Amino acid sequence: MTDLEARIAKLEAIEAIKALKHKYFNACDAKEADVVRACFLDDATIDAGPMGRYDSADAFIDLFKKAGCHPHIIDMHHGANPEIDIVSDDRATAVWALYFHTMNTDAQTYRQMAGRYFDAYEFVGGAWKIASSRFVPHSILDGSLAALGTGGNGS
Amino acid sequence: MTDLEARIAKLEAIEAIKALKHKYFNACDAKEADVVRACFLDDATIDAGPMGRYDSADAFIDLFKKAGCHPHIIDMHHGANPEIDIVSDDRATAVWALYFHTMNTDAQTYRQMAGRYFDAYEFVGGAWKIASSRFVPHSILDGSLAALGTGGNGS
Amino acid sequence: MTDLEARIAKLEAIEAIKALKHKYFNACDAKEADVVRACFLDDATIDAGPMGRYDSADAFIDLFKKAGCHPHIIDMHHGANPEIDIVSDDRATAVWALYFHTMNTDAQTYRQMAGRYFDAYEFVGGAWKIASSRFVPHSILDGSLAALGTGGNGS
Repeated sequence: MTDLEARIAKLEAIEAIKALKHKYFNACDAKEADVVRACFLDDATIDAGPMGRYDSADAFIDLFKKAGCHPHIIDMHHGANPEIDIVSDDRATAVWALYFHTMNTDAQTYRQMAGRYFDAYEFVGGAWKIASSRFVPHSILDGSLAALGTGGNGS
Repeated sequence: MTDLEARIAKLEAIEAIKALKHKYFNACDAKEADVVRACFLDDATIDAGPMGRYDSADAFIDLFKKAGCHPHIIDMHHGANPEIDIVSDDRATAVWALYFHTMNTDAQTYRQMAGRYFDAYEFVGGAWKIASSRFVPHSILDGSLAALGTGGNGS
Repeated sequence: MTDLEARIAKLEAIEAIKALKHKYFNACDAKEADVVRACFLDDATIDAGPMGRYDSADAFIDLFKKAGCHPHIIDMHHGANPEIDIVSDDRATAVWALYFHTMNTDAQTYRQMAGRYFDAYEFVGGAWKIASSRFVPHSILDGSLAALGTGGNGS
């Protein structure tokens, strides 16, 4: 690989990892469990902060389906501030900020949360995947949805 | 075009499309109608979700001026989670998440909204433009601004 | 420098400037004053909008420590909508949107704020640094935290 090609490959890897995490966030909000699942290595380790720790992608997806995939749970997962470090051709790490907002229209509660992800990625089978992910919250606000106003999914 | 040049061109296209959408969002909040207008092809189709459907850029700008360009309307349009697909040298598509917040300081109401854009872009006359845009909300929260606190534009 | 190399260098500069600002935002929320300090040139000029004007990085860091670095101050600084213009090999400018949220758990108050940064950057000593930064708010919402719910840092 020439020097120029290596520099292009690094830029491509950064873009691919951003797109991977963005696909993950968008699929979380759309409750597309299969898309979320495909973002992870099978043996990924996931520390979801207040949502628990999981030692495989399937275990995390089980939590995701049980906790998130209901019509009365309305989520936002918006990524921010990515700092991506390409360690080698097939290893990378990143810090991401998260803005999270959820409404439970049955219980009439909401949570706003921010924090940072500390992620590791591997390039396997032609694509970048999340190998490990640790979320550390630093701002949580819980309250009554009814006191705020009227919440829904827009449909 | 060499293979390396094609790879650079693709990265440049991704960056240009991000910058285009960011310019659009920033101009929406700054109420710069001419800048917003220039982001679109003349015959762009725009489905703005709860704000209606428009079959030309001028029709959409008319809505934008009437609904948004007033001192008592204070908006945030923050893009998140872009997933950009360069289809060819002059065609691309993207999914974007939006965090939207608006305050009406006359009516003393606010809306917080999240959703996804499904966009198509064309490279015309040396620049990428939005050819079509469809916004699908998935989280809407409406309430009384006075119940929250004191809102303004900071001036 | 060949044409291709110049194009790669421009893409690298854009990515480096994004990573710099993201590091700044994340360090603000983590209250890592040394990391925040290292993002600026020594003689950087910083107009922090409602937080005042500073004519050196050290003066700004002094404000940052006094105003922000306390356990009862819980901040979010999330960057959005970057529009980056590489002016030359060692000069660049950018517009960024900011979503800011802060809770004061002693006073039981919160502030949500959005606005735009107008930044200039210089490439000095092998790295991009913030040479000047001006923040202009356009949406501010102040209120009682206790009226919203229960806020904390998640620990």
